Amino acid sequence: MRKYRIDFGDCGIQSVSVVDVSYSLHGVARKLIRSEESMKPGSNKHILIYMVAGVLAFAAMAARAADPLPSWREGPAKQAIVAFVAKVTKEHSPDFVSIPERIATFDNDGTLWAEQPMYFQLLFALDRVKALAPQHPEWKDQEPFASLLKGDMKGVLEGGEKAIAEIVMATHAGMTTAEFEQTVKDWLATAKHPKTGRPYTEMVYKPMLELLAYLRENHFKTFIVSGGGIEFMRPWTEKVYGIPPEQVVGSSIKTKYELRDGKPVLVRLPEINFIDDKAGKPVGINSHIGRRPIAAFGNSDGDQQMLEWTQAGGGARLMMLVHHDDAEREWAYGAESKIGTFSDALMAEAKQQ
Amino acid sequence: MRKYRIDFGDCGIQSVSVVDVSYSLHGVARKLIRSEESMKPGSNKHILIYMVAGVLAFAAMAARAADPLPSWREGPAKQAIVAFVAKVTKEHSPDFVSIPERIATFDNDGTLWAEQPMYFQLLFALDRVKALAPQHPEWKDQEPFASLLKGDMKGVLEGGEKAIAEIVMATHAGMTTAEFEQTVKDWLATAKHPKTGRPYTEMVYKPMLELLAYLRENHFKTFIVSGGGIEFMRPWTEKVYGIPPEQVVGSSIKTKYELRDGKPVLVRLPEINFIDDKAGKPVGINSHIGRRPIAAFGNSDGDQQMLEWTQAGGGARLMMLVHHDDAEREWAYGAESKIGTFSDALMAEAKQQ
Repeated sequence: MRKYRIDFGDCGIQSVSVVDVSYSLHGVARKLIRSEESMKPGSNKHILIYMVAGVLAFAAMAARAADPLPSWREGPAKQAIVAFVAKVTKEHSPDFVSIPERIATFDNDGTLWAEQPMYFQLLFALDRVKALAPQHPEWKDQEPFASLLKGDMKGVLEGGEKAIAEIVMATHAGMTTAEFEQTVKDWLATAKHPKTGRPYTEMVYKPMLELLAYLRENHFKTFIVSGGGIEFMRPWTEKVYGIPPEQVVGSSIKTKYELRDGKPVLVRLPEINFIDDKAGKPVGINSHIGRRPIAAFGNSDGDQQMLEWTQAGGGARLMMLVHHDDAEREWAYGAESKIGTFSDALMAEAKQQ
Repeated sequence: MRKYRIDFGDCGIQSVSVVDVSYSLHGVARKLIRSEESMKPGSNKHILIYMVAGVLAFAAMAARAADPLPSWREGPAKQAIVAFVAKVTKEHSPDFVSIPERIATFDNDGTLWAEQPMYFQLLFALDRVKALAPQHPEWKDQEPFASLLKGDMKGVLEGGEKAIAEIVMATHAGMTTAEFEQTVKDWLATAKHPKTGRPYTEMVYKPMLELLAYLRENHFKTFIVSGGGIEFMRPWTEKVYGIPPEQVVGSSIKTKYELRDGKPVLVRLPEINFIDDKAGKPVGINSHIGRRPIAAFGNSDGDQQMLEWTQAGGGARLMMLVHHDDAEREWAYGAESKIGTFSDALMAEAKQQ
């Protein structure tokens, strides 16, 4: 759904079975970022990619622990989070924020779960093309499908955004919402990440799960605001992040209500409805949430406007950017990356504070 | 935002200062409606229009009361509501519904607040044209504004839907979201209903406030799903109904993010984004909520698809239609009404059960 270009030959996949993540966090204040800081290196190689099965147990554990953010390295970023939560929840303080106004928004790709070697939703789309190919004999001679089915990703990508859009529409439209949801669930139940061999729903960042839980313990309502497809995320966000479908904002295609054999269905149409990225994120926030977040978390140029919009409200605010800079345990990428671009301009703005 | 025609000469306004409401409730099951039933006539003339200032006190009172729906006449409709809530909240019962799945949706115009002599949002738009006229000298010679400013509503309505759309866009677009919100709040603080002389936010149905509170006490999440403008409702629904902005679904125009003097704003554009009426209601529910309601409440043809969509899910369901049939205490209208049309076809479907 995002605008992207992909270079398969240059994605740095290594064949390791566990990926740990260490990233710098930039506390964003006035202009954008407050201070640079990085997280606990994590002696335990499993510390930062979190097992889904343990989410509930973990949440309970976190609630008991004296430290609500045990995976986070001590430093300015963690201090900024804890200080922010303390002041907005302290009654009669000048920074107190009433519970209904405690809205926190999170980007998904690259912020809550990984996004390398490419957006997981695009990997889903590629797998779907392969699965649907027997029903589409015409794809053998039709780009971008012909190249894709031959494993020639360079050929696919020569078609640019138009080719990606065709792949997305061929795999995301033409079925009912219920059918699409089931397809997403089935894929997630079996598909494995090409580098780690793990289910995609385990490629999530443990420090961010801790942060989500910590905010909710302090009566924040946590929302996803992602460039990814809203209906691609909703089938699993409640289980994996504790974020229910009605708190997921994302990109979408149009749907149409109709009766099929007397039964109401919503059919997914091959037409873009909304792109929830860059300047679309404040629009999506306004449309779905209807009030301004007091905290926002992202990792790329696509999140800049969400952070600006959050910052422009009155009172205490917390804006943070995840910077992926640990090639050993995860991926290191930034300005040069086609996925999750963190431009030099954004970095300069972030460091300005 | 809805499709409507209006006949000013025929709206049956009487100069009484208090409007009470008695309406029939149709419990909708399989096909549409289960049984006909009406509500307590209400010896107290204030019983059914509820004072905003008392909402919180009322909610506390309702929680203490043995009867959670004291304004409701004993009968099949009330029994159906109480029985439904009992079975979906009873653990280990076959009809038990987990808390996150307890989604209830309510139409607004004619279901939660009144909609006669015309949609209140249209009355707002007419008032805004008058207020904005000094800044638009060209309106004196330009329809539909010229007729409107002369008080000639018949002239306005000769322009049909196009005229209404022009009035809506002239009054709902061209400002920031924050400016529009303030305008709505200012209008509601001073405008009075033409028949009752009361603020519009007091033209709400007490039995429905009781129902909202009762469902929430049973851990339902209550949503508005209305043909009205989403940003026209959000400034007041939390205070009046206890429904926060993120649980309001409605019609919308497009917005655009931009920086004005370095400050981020969302500008309201004169372009329809989404019409949340009829077949649009299931689309809006899917877009904003992402799961199917187990209970839905409406009052007109515009709600039919929302009720069908609700009904088509598995397990226990409750679908109800308010029928306005008390001309003495409120308004009686149905198939012939241009506002809140309750067609004979819908009634037949409703009575079928």
